[in-house]
Amino acid sequence: MRGVIMHTAGDVRVEDRDDPKIIEPTDAVVRLTATCICGSDLWPYRGIEPADHTLMGHEYVGVVEEVGSAVETVEPGDFVVGSFVISDNTCEICRAGFQSKCVHAEFVHAGIGTQAEKARIPLADGTLVATPGRPEPELVPALLAASDVLGTGWFAAVAAEAGPGKTAAVVGDGAVGLMAILAAKQLGAERIIAMSRHPERQKLARYYGATDIVEERGDAGVAKIKEMTGGHGAHAVVEAVGTQEAFMQAVGATRGGGHMGYVGVNHEVQIPGIELFFAGIHTLGGPAPVRRFLPELIQLIWDRKIDPGRVFDLTLPLEQAPEGYKAMDERRATKVLLTL
Amino acid sequence: MRGVIMHTAGDVRVEDRDDPKIIEPTDAVVRLTATCICGSDLWPYRGIEPADHTLMGHEYVGVVEEVGSAVETVEPGDFVVGSFVISDNTCEICRAGFQSKCVHAEFVHAGIGTQAEKARIPLADGTLVATPGRPEPELVPALLAASDVLGTGWFAAVAAEAGPGKTAAVVGDGAVGLMAILAAKQLGAERIIAMSRHPERQKLARYYGATDIVEERGDAGVAKIKEMTGGHGAHAVVEAVGTQEAFMQAVGATRGGGHMGYVGVNHEVQIPGIELFFAGIHTLGGPAPVRRFLPELIQLIWDRKIDPGRVFDLTLPLEQAPEGYKAMDERRATKVLLTL
Repeated sequence: MRGVIMHTAGDVRVEDRDDPKIIEPTDAVVRLTATCICGSDLWPYRGIEPADHTLMGHEYVGVVEEVGSAVETVEPGDFVVGSFVISDNTCEICRAGFQSKCVHAEFVHAGIGTQAEKARIPLADGTLVATPGRPEPELVPALLAASDVLGTGWFAAVAAEAGPGKTAAVVGDGAVGLMAILAAKQLGAERIIAMSRHPERQKLARYYGATDIVEERGDAGVAKIKEMTGGHGAHAVVEAVGTQEAFMQAVGATRGGGHMGYVGVNHEVQIPGIELFFAGIHTLGGPAPVRRFLPELIQLIWDRKIDPGRVFDLTLPLEQAPEGYKAMDERRATKVLLTL
Repeated sequence: MRGVIMHTAGDVRVEDRDDPKIIEPTDAVVRLTATCICGSDLWPYRGIEPADHTLMGHEYVGVVEEVGSAVETVEPGDFVVGSFVISDNTCEICRAGFQSKCVHAEFVHAGIGTQAEKARIPLADGTLVATPGRPEPELVPALLAASDVLGTGWFAAVAAEAGPGKTAAVVGDGAVGLMAILAAKQLGAERIIAMSRHPERQKLARYYGATDIVEERGDAGVAKIKEMTGGHGAHAVVEAVGTQEAFMQAVGATRGGGHMGYVGVNHEVQIPGIELFFAGIHTLGGPAPVRRFLPELIQLIWDRKIDPGRVFDLTLPLEQAPEGYKAMDERRATKVLLTL
């Protein structure tokens, strides 16, 4: 089969790879319908993380082709959405809703590589969720978004406790930030402030539910949020950038006793303990437990109540994945969908 | 009146000071019954924070002597307990239970100085809580503890969401750590692990409710907690030391999706963002909103259901405050009560 391999930073190729096979009785092999390039795939692309003939991709939707003897909840022919973290969904941590910290957690990006025609998904029962039927083609991008970017934005908004009567603020207008806006709206936030300075992203932010746009960053951004919230700060703040400045901007924008959800930090982020302490805020972050939200998100998409698929602004065939990486690296695209 | 003044690091004196007077109509003047020395008073004593003829003390109980014309909830003759942070208890932040981040928040340690015969307490209605009557003398230490050290330990345990069915771990066996143990027990935690290596403190930890003691620190301490909790980590972890090592020990000891409460960090603490991120935990910290808990804590003390007063292991008259500082600095005492 064909699949994406990153030989080294900046060198992405589509090459022949062995077809995946069932290894464990809990595995499934999925023939992918669509996959995509993640903002985090740019880290190795830019040399910030190592890349050495790395199999790329961790977002995926497709049709189950084969299952191991122990798999019970999905069967060949099912259309499935999976999380970017493998989980058993039965351990104590999973049952508490933190499947990304499952005792058997394993990142799909470490060794599976879903930018390919097929993928072997371990712990299929705990990782995959079947859709109610075969989706109309126009629903495929939305379902694919649920696999990571929507699930992550949703978790961030839940972590920030966005909800009725609350002012939410979202730092970052990338795909995850936009999905956090969608989530905050679904969760009932009264006011949703998008922190964005790109006109195109601002438009999409408003489409997804932003009621206000703040272009200022850093201390000026914090000051603006305070000014807009009677001096208090927002109740619910999402950090969806991952840099030091963005993290501290989110801390500063959260009111005392408020909640901040963060869903990615780079290796350089160092949080001054004393600043976090005197902020007096709740924080929750980490790789999103997408599996917790998948059943609900699939249903919302199936019922056409949310439209996360618009977050993909460039669609290419798998064979053109290298151009997709380039477009995202050069910021010509927010998120690239790869068709098969 | 007599009061404690820290001339410079290590130089504490009891001297004559002007009697406090009502300045604002919302003030009260309290004649103190007892006060104490806080672990945080050692920071300027040791030169870690500046001291220049600083009025010391922020914990206090006593009898109201005079109130301003706008004060409604306490009156002369009332025995009162106050928080170490002044608050109006009416603003949006206070109503959400975060009185230490009140829009009018002011630290008692900045300019009031309750290691004295009397103190002027601003925003008396929002800061002071009257006891049901004049307390028996043996209740005074317990009520004084509520002013900071009990309120802070209690907040830490609440922030960590200690409760029924949960394993709590407390990093630190100082006064606040011991009070967090007491709180975790009251909140119904099933198992309470005290991280302590001092035999005397271990005894007190067990008295207050610890079911297990772990002497290891740092990575070894984390490994021990994991070993004791089926590899998961504790549900509810309190950090009550304030150093880098203790903070990261608490992060590591918390299970994925668990809660960590922290109630003090020194200026050197730098939290590696990536470690906090991959821990996948809830955190809540900051100066404790003691005012939120005071009515409940006073009642528990009044009904003799909790006995936080045992945290004081040295009692001296105010005039001997310098000896009290020395005893705490040299670790001959955990917490010193000063009588008036």
